Amino acid sequence: MSESHGAAGNGLYFEDLTVGRRFSTGTYAVTEEKIKAFAREFDPQPFHLDESAGRASLLGGLAASGWHTAAITMRLIVEAGPWFAGGTLGMGAEVNWRKPVRPGDVLHAESEVTELVPSRSRADRGRVTMRTNTLNARGETVQTLISKLLVPRHLPR
Amino acid sequence: MSESHGAAGNGLYFEDLTVGRRFSTGTYAVTEEKIKAFAREFDPQPFHLDESAGRASLLGGLAASGWHTAAITMRLIVEAGPWFAGGTLGMGAEVNWRKPVRPGDVLHAESEVTELVPSRSRADRGRVTMRTNTLNARGETVQTLISKLLVPRHLPR
Repeated sequence: MSESHGAAGNGLYFEDLTVGRRFSTGTYAVTEEKIKAFAREFDPQPFHLDESAGRASLLGGLAASGWHTAAITMRLIVEAGPWFAGGTLGMGAEVNWRKPVRPGDVLHAESEVTELVPSRSRADRGRVTMRTNTLNARGETVQTLISKLLVPRHLPR
Repeated sequence: MSESHGAAGNGLYFEDLTVGRRFSTGTYAVTEEKIKAFAREFDPQPFHLDESAGRASLLGGLAASGWHTAAITMRLIVEAGPWFAGGTLGMGAEVNWRKPVRPGDVLHAESEVTELVPSRSRADRGRVTMRTNTLNARGETVQTLISKLLVPRHLPR
């Protein structure tokens, strides 16, 4: 099952989720201006700021900061949701950058619940592990992300 | 050994590094305006945009997006460097958000090389694992980050 929005616009509770549940997002168009603006503020290295420096680097051309790709992925997820009650509240994540993100790329993300662990100490929440692939318009995965999220749980009656 | 700048402003090569080598950064002052501006662009959830929504959430008050903290940490690292020849080029990272980052927090980062693995396929590079803690002015670690970086290696003669 894949869907673009959480149930009734308010998001799912922990007990509504099953491993394998999928979500997908809309799209985000990456531009040279956005790559450089993010880099100027957070990752001012030449290969994120200048085409010829990008070509001379291991990135092989101007490319977005990996942290920019991660932030864009978060925006895609938030705009597509709320998937979860209480929003998307991450405790941590493992991110891997697989391919450079270039000016002109149009990105979207595909997420899947991979693990559900009720909190041992708090009956009102659980930990959801979600794997999110960020893809470009050629279907290439540019980033993989495994996030640990805190999702509310209805208290047992 | 802890230092604020790479050797001679050009950064260290893979073979210059040893496990345990430490680096530290300058500081970054987080403001309400910056938290909200980042959130509007990349993580527009109420607890990153509004004080009362923050208080009502598990974050207990307005707090920066975790991706904002990660991006600030990258900026601190880049501004303190270049630590490595070729810049700080990440293949991936594991990030954990330990405490909320609030308006008024002044952050800095402390990094340590934890692993050095020469590339098996390419003699001109190696993989450096670096652990970076981001701390607030009270000395609390707000984020831990383990990054896998690609660092150039002088070719053997």
